Parts: sequence; C-alpha cells; structure tokens
Amino acid sequence: MPARRRPTLIVTLLTILSLTLTTNATAQGGDAPGDQLLRTAQALFAPLPDVAANLENPVTDTKVELGKMLYYEPRLSLSGVFSCNSCHNIATYGVDNLETATGHGWAQGPRNSPTVMNAALQASQFWDGRAKDVEEQAGGPILNPIEMGIPSQEFAVARLSSIPQYAELFAMAFPDQAEPLVYANVANAIGAFERTLITPARFDTYLGGDQSALSDLEKTGLQTFISYGCAGCHSGTTVGGNSLQRFGVVESYWEATREFVTIDTPTMGMDVGRFAVTHETQDLYIFKVPTLRNITRTYPYFHDGSVWDLRDATQIMARVQLGRELTDEDLDALMAFYATLEGEIPAYALQLPVLPASTTETAKPQH
Amino acid sequence: MPARRRPTLIVTLLTILSLTLTTNATAQGGDAPGDQLLRTAQALFAPLPDVAANLENPVTDTKVELGKMLYYEPRLSLSGVFSCNSCHNIATYGVDNLETATGHGWAQGPRNSPTVMNAALQASQFWDGRAKDVEEQAGGPILNPIEMGIPSQEFAVARLSSIPQYAELFAMAFPDQAEPLVYANVANAIGAFERTLITPARFDTYLGGDQSALSDLEKTGLQTFISYGCAGCHSGTTVGGNSLQRFGVVESYWEATREFVTIDTPTMGMDVGRFAVTHETQDLYIFKVPTLRNITRTYPYFHDGSVWDLRDATQIMARVQLGRELTDEDLDALMAFYATLEGEIPAYALQLPVLPASTTETAKPQH
Repeated sequence: MPARRRPTLIVTLLTILSLTLTTNATAQGGDAPGDQLLRTAQALFAPLPDVAANLENPVTDTKVELGKMLYYEPRLSLSGVFSCNSCHNIATYGVDNLETATGHGWAQGPRNSPTVMNAALQASQFWDGRAKDVEEQAGGPILNPIEMGIPSQEFAVARLSSIPQYAELFAMAFPDQAEPLVYANVANAIGAFERTLITPARFDTYLGGDQSALSDLEKTGLQTFISYGCAGCHSGTTVGGNSLQRFGVVESYWEATREFVTIDTPTMGMDVGRFAVTHETQDLYIFKVPTLRNITRTYPYFHDGSVWDLRDATQIMARVQLGRELTDEDLDALMAFYATLEGEIPAYALQLPVLPASTTETAKPQH
Repeated sequence: MPARRRPTLIVTLLTILSLTLTTNATAQGGDAPGDQLLRTAQALFAPLPDVAANLENPVTDTKVELGKMLYYEPRLSLSGVFSCNSCHNIATYGVDNLETATGHGWAQGPRNSPTVMNAALQASQFWDGRAKDVEEQAGGPILNPIEMGIPSQEFAVARLSSIPQYAELFAMAFPDQAEPLVYANVANAIGAFERTLITPARFDTYLGGDQSALSDLEKTGLQTFISYGCAGCHSGTTVGGNSLQRFGVVESYWEATREFVTIDTPTMGMDVGRFAVTHETQDLYIFKVPTLRNITRTYPYFHDGSVWDLRDATQIMARVQLGRELTDEDLDALMAFYATLEGEIPAYALQLPVLPASTTETAKPQH
C-alpha cells in the first residue's frame, strides 16, 4: 500500500521552497529570469515517460493490442451494454464526465470515475487506493454488480473462450503460459493497454527545459501552485496520484462544497473514504490525491463529482486543505497553468479495434 | 415512401431466371463455367459505391468530421451515457449485438438495432421504413424517451451551442447557412458521416468481374440464394433494404421462430410492423427487408432479435417466406456465401474523435 505523507509537513517544506524561490531568484550567478522556477518545478515534478512500465506485466505489442480490444469489449459486461470505455471514455480523456458512473441496471455508483489517462503511473488505484496498480484495478469493475455485472471470473473467461479469436490472441499475448486465457490475464492485458495511455503536454516540454513552452501567466500559475502549497500533494510525474490524504484538513469538505453543488448526487452524504476499506479511525475521509493531468477535461471534480467548475473546485481545495482564500487573479493564473497539463491522447488508443464475432457457444447478454 | 413490391411476383421472376441460369449455362457460345452465374448476379446485385451520395445533403469533409463527433457524442443523450455508437457500435459492424436496444433508464426497446453500415444506401430507414433516409432517421433516437432521452430539439441545440468548438464546426460544415447550429443539421451531419460507412467485401470484387474472388462453395451458395428466391427481396447494392415485405408469407413467423428462440425478448408478442405507422390493414406484419451485408456480424436476427444463429434464421426465412425446408448442404453453401458479404469497416470511422470540453453553460447530464 502506498505511503501516506503528512500534508502539514509537506506544506511547510513547500513554503520554505517557495520563499527560496522568491528571494533567491536573482541571487544566483548566471541565472536567467525563470531559471529558478524551472529548477524548482523540475525538483517537484517530472516529465511523462512514453509508457508506464511494469516488470511483473511487461508491456508488449500483442498484449497491448489484446488489452485494447478488451477495453472496448461490451461482452465484458453482463448486459453487453458497457465496456471499460463506457466510464473511461478515451474520446473524453478517460472519463465519463458524469458525477458518478451509471452501471448495470441503471445503477448509479458511489464515486466519480477517475481518468484512465496516465493512471498507471499513480502509486495506487481507486479513490481509496485499495488496488496497487492498474492490473489489480482492471479486474474490479467487470465483476461489480452495479458496474459491468459479470457474475464471476469463470463467466468472463467462458464468454471470451467461446470466441476463437480471443483464444488465439491470449496465447500470443501470454506465450509462456500453459493456460493463457484466465481472468488474471484479462486484467493483465487491459492493464498493459492502460500503461500506454500517456498524454504528454506542454508542461512536459517545459520540464524538459524549454521555458518558452509556457506563457508568463502560465508560469505565474505554476509559481502560485507551488508557493501556495498545492504541490505538497499534487506533485510528481502525474501531478498527484502518489499519496492518500485527508480531504478536509482545515475545514469540512462537505460544508465547503455545499454552495458550489449544482445538482444532487447520490453521495452527498459523508463518504468515509479509505475508512471503508481499513476500518481504522485514522483513515476516515482519506482519499487518493487525484492526478491533475488533463484536469481541464476530467470534470466534474472530487470523489463524488459534485463540483463542475474548475475554479470552484480549486477555491474549495485552497479553503479546506490550505486554509486560504484565492483571489480572482490567483484563479486566473492557476487556470492558465492547468491548461498546460492538457495533453495529447495517443492516436493508437483512439483507433477502435474491430471486435471478433460471438459464436453459438457465447453466453448471451442479460438485461 | 419506398415502393412495396409483391414478393410472389418477384419469386416467380427469380424462378424463371434461375431456370435460365441452370439450363442455359452451357448453351451460350464462348461462356466459361461460371459466366452465367456472374451475369445473373450482376443483374440482381451491384457493387458498393465509395459513398452513399445525397444531393440534398452533400457529403463534405467538414460535415463528415462533425458528424463523426456527434455520432460518438454522449452529450446527445440526456444521461450522458449513450451516443449513437452505443447501439450502432462501429467496432461491431454498426450494431449492439443485443436482442433489442437498452436505452435511457435501462429501458429495453421494442426492436433490434439495425446496422448503420451501408444503411444510407437503403430505400428507407427503421424496421417499418418510416424514415426516408439516414438524415431523417438520425434525429429520431436522440429525442426518443427510451433511447437517448433528450427532452426537445431545443435542449439538444442549446447543449451543443454551449460548446464553442461545436459552434465553429457547424459553421464550417454548413457554410452557406445563417444559423448553422440547428437540430436539422445535427441530423444532417450525422447522416453525412453515415453515408461514408460503406463496407466493401469480396462479393463486390466478384461482382466487378473477378470470379476467383469466390470459392466454389461460395458460388454454390450464391446460386442457391438466387434460385431458391432469397434474392427476390434481398437484392440490389445492399442485398436487401430496398423494399417492405410481409414477414410470414407461407406460415406464421411467430410460430416458426418459437423453437429457435433461446431467451425471452420484450417483443415476443406479435409486432404489427408497419401497421403501427399507417394503421392500414395491408401493412400488418410488414417490415423492411434488412440488408444482408455483414449478416455474419449483425446477430441476433430479425426485428425482435429473437434468433441468434444464422443457420436458424435462414431456415426460418426459407420456411415462412418461401415454404421451403433447407438441407444441411443448402445451409452450408448459404453460410459460405454470407461470408463473402462481410466487408471492411472504414478505418476513418474507427478513429475516435477527441470530443470538445463542456463549459459552465453546458446542460448537465441527468440520470
């Protein structure tokens, strides 16, 4: 399980760093304007890799191709209506843009669908961090009765096994295994595909050393983001996704969001967060810090999808996590910075696979 | 509205044609074996064009690109869950492979979702032929309360208008219009995209004169298809789709299908067909003859999706429409012929568009 860092300590460290940034910008010999901001950013963040590698589940072409087919495969839902792509739509940056997901039987799930883009780079998966990686995550929703609703691992494997093309593709993707078409490999193949869902953005160009990649306003936003303490949690390659934190450090999240909520969601009650997994008091209201990569596209925000406007969401975060009220100028700069995190969806992922035909042996969809 | 032809007359004509085919195959001077079958096929069918043109709605690049975005656009459903592609999935030959569609609120529709592939070439749209073309069709499901559930044309237009990129794309796609973002143009753009969904197959190569494109068994299937009278209705470019016919000429469809039905569907009662549109007695049990292009992929079969196995469906058609019982050899040959109708989905259509972001003005999804 991922380490949980203390946000107050991080904020203190960030404040020291930002003071250094502010006061020493012109003190170091040979520094051009902006060099210090770039160096600080390079210390806090990192450019995206081409692929999120996993030694235990190597990303191979055959596995990724199979994983993509399974990602777009409606037969991985009992009804034949939903695929992974239904809630993590590649065409909309890996989310469904709904407060919380709609699943089997028109059930409304308890939490917002997180983006699949760059998700494999995170330290853990799900809002409560209960899965260690995308491979572990991918097997979950298929079997969840209010998501894809497949009754058992055996059902999923039997349905896929009835389609000769899948039997061949699993054998090619897992060539060293005596029994390649098993449920764990459904998740491994989908996970391998997800490890390719990386969205390089202008911010990566900047982190690579090209200061012209960001405008002055965007750099002001970045500096604000660092100096106000946002980067205390939203750091690293995915600008978040690396730790679990209490939501509502300074004041209650639920009180603070009420005025911004435009429509009811099923989770407007108090979501206890990771406590539901561990039943330890210290995990009350603990959630994974989400990645801010493509945050301009992954609305609505928070684990309950209750807030649609990114300015509102940012103001709420400043208030309940940092005890700070942002000015309109702060928000303008932060919105400009966020735009630099909007990356490019890989063309390969957008290319829909043609799915193989069912046979008379294939289990029928069940409404 | 499309003309309705008398199936008995057609069957008679086809029988004469097939007798000619059988008896004159070697009588004509200079004919190589198979020439007569090819000529007969060329008289009954036609190769697919590149695009299904429409003078009233010209197929332009900008319109097709916009139409593709709208085709994959979940915001054209009230819930944000369904797009056109949900029921007419490009990855599965333009169908959902369900008995009948699942729509807003988990409603189950009354009829099977027909394929969108090559649909624009048909003489009419919907199972009862109530729309004259794909443009007229495309506007229907968006507003249907048990399909995409958008409450009004105004709602759809307002939601799209709140997204600046759509305003620009409509202006580019309909450059001569003072008010390009209107509901009719939503349907026109989707229709233009659908006019590009053409799937050339080996059968087209054969119709173009290359007799080696079909195997001997496939040619036997084609000859069976013609001489038994199937081509009486399933003719033309789309091998069907050109006329409306009574389902159950020789005996009751519902009685004949009962033994083949594997699971219940909501429409296992008597669907009155086109009668529901016209309320004229002569339209009782009248349905559009579906295209057989990609029939190997567009299971389950018939207007109620009640039959999953193509052999069963073919046997039922022979029995209830032609009063004939097919042998296993007949069915083997017909299945081989059907495989030649399985075409290639255009790569462009499979390339998912990246959809533009909503704004704070965009109407929220409603569960």
